[in-house]
Amino acid sequence: MNLNEIGEFGLIKRFRRTIKTDSSVIKGSGDDCAVLKFNKDSYQLFTCDMLVEGVDFTNRADLVLVGRKALAVSISDIAACCGIPKHAVISLGLPKKMKVSQADLLAKGIFDLAKEFKINIVGGDISAADKLVIDVSLLGEVEKKMLCLRSGAKEGDIIMVTGEFGGSIKGKHLKFRPRIKEARFLAENFKINSMIDVSDGLVQDLGHILEESRKGAVLYENLIPLSRQAEGVDEALCSGEEFELIFTLSRDQASKVITNKKYKFRLIGEIMPESFGLRIIDPGNKHSKVNQKKQGQTASRYLGGYRHF
Amino acid sequence: MNLNEIGEFGLIKRFRRTIKTDSSVIKGSGDDCAVLKFNKDSYQLFTCDMLVEGVDFTNRADLVLVGRKALAVSISDIAACCGIPKHAVISLGLPKKMKVSQADLLAKGIFDLAKEFKINIVGGDISAADKLVIDVSLLGEVEKKMLCLRSGAKEGDIIMVTGEFGGSIKGKHLKFRPRIKEARFLAENFKINSMIDVSDGLVQDLGHILEESRKGAVLYENLIPLSRQAEGVDEALCSGEEFELIFTLSRDQASKVITNKKYKFRLIGEIMPESFGLRIIDPGNKHSKVNQKKQGQTASRYLGGYRHF
Repeated sequence: MNLNEIGEFGLIKRFRRTIKTDSSVIKGSGDDCAVLKFNKDSYQLFTCDMLVEGVDFTNRADLVLVGRKALAVSISDIAACCGIPKHAVISLGLPKKMKVSQADLLAKGIFDLAKEFKINIVGGDISAADKLVIDVSLLGEVEKKMLCLRSGAKEGDIIMVTGEFGGSIKGKHLKFRPRIKEARFLAENFKINSMIDVSDGLVQDLGHILEESRKGAVLYENLIPLSRQAEGVDEALCSGEEFELIFTLSRDQASKVITNKKYKFRLIGEIMPESFGLRIIDPGNKHSKVNQKKQGQTASRYLGGYRHF
Repeated sequence: MNLNEIGEFGLIKRFRRTIKTDSSVIKGSGDDCAVLKFNKDSYQLFTCDMLVEGVDFTNRADLVLVGRKALAVSISDIAACCGIPKHAVISLGLPKKMKVSQADLLAKGIFDLAKEFKINIVGGDISAADKLVIDVSLLGEVEKKMLCLRSGAKEGDIIMVTGEFGGSIKGKHLKFRPRIKEARFLAENFKINSMIDVSDGLVQDLGHILEESRKGAVLYENLIPLSRQAEGVDEALCSGEEFELIFTLSRDQASKVITNKKYKFRLIGEIMPESFGLRIIDPGNKHSKVNQKKQGQTASRYLGGYRHF
């Protein structure tokens, strides 16, 4: 069987089945970060992300932005758990033909963003490689009462997002600002039930919340905030590496979030029972089941997302 | 300037100069692990290692052993700080043509060793890549009084090692057992001043202890323990990925370590003042300065080690 037959997520599920963890692990594989026992008031967060030349960036990309992105994607994972990033270690696989000046640019991108987010770069590993590979592992902290996982969505929750979607590939994927401030503002002032960052696409990542929470959802097509780079709503719903946050919270809390003066958060849908599946309502009030193709049911609408395999 | 003109260690030094860390970091880049504040009695250890196909293993290597090695090299870093490994996250860059059954073998190697060392695999990232890349980030813990760094070697210290050297490339590099038990035994029962694991070669890694401790050393050629696979003493002194530990301690402590009944540790030399440099004494009592080529001095003996660039 080839990897593309079970896909990246199939492989992760396959591995997760064989993994056992002890009581020091609050939440292992299957969320944006691992959650570990830390001290009386806080948990430790732990995440890693690998960026590969030709997959996550081209060989013509600005190396400062490549370095920046390598750290930013992990910061976004900490944001999705409402935490604060703290310490990073960085592994670099560098092509032998790379110039020292190019390595300097890569480092500048990483170090400047680390400084901005007060992250300590505490170690690393440098190896030769055919193509550039960067792996960042990041530790963070989150107050126990503020921790937000994918699994907490409740029926009737409002689904909200931190920004606009679509066309990330045209530039945002290299320049996005991880939503730490927004996540902390939300966790400090409201009761957020679930959260995830959009690395693979709005629909696909919302799907992770639904799967971990065992819920369904409805999205309102005309409420999806489109960026200027978006090619249309379908593209915006599938576009990977947007690195906005999707979060869910009660109707009462949502009404308070909507009226806050500090950040602009948008309502895009509601959490439904699991049996409802995921549906989208278009401006003509037509309901479509998303990514389901069962006989005798409403016509389905396929909205994919990024897949490595 | 090309990377091979400053080398892997030159590049690391270059990066280290620009890195600042806050007071929560006891020891950042420049040791086997980063050392972070944790709780009243213990520090947290944090390390990462990247393995790349064609560099750290061939495309014909047993994938179970490749997975095992990917975790083992990080466990060895925790051992070198006298710590206990705890939690790992793993990034995999997998070729698209890889079979699910091959990914299973890789995972088996990682998971079996994790189980053996009671390590929680708490997360990861899977990406497509042209060649197989595995990056493991590992957290550990060490009691404050047991922490051992590269920088603590004292003049007059005895230099000891945990095992034999040479010919690792013939198999040991894929099958070695990280020296956690030995390191813990040493830290629990003796006062160890400095320690490092041999990933790049005995002389090169001892060199890191000497540099961080600002000391010199003398090695006794006929005391270097050679493995059956060693091609000779020079090969044993340069052989990378032996993953034995080098440690230094007072003469008094060393005499107690030598007579312990539990593990076999061997004396190989002594720590000297920095101005002494690194010298080796051969069986004919001839002294050679190692890796130094200054005019008017003793004939030098070049003993390299593994270098990525």
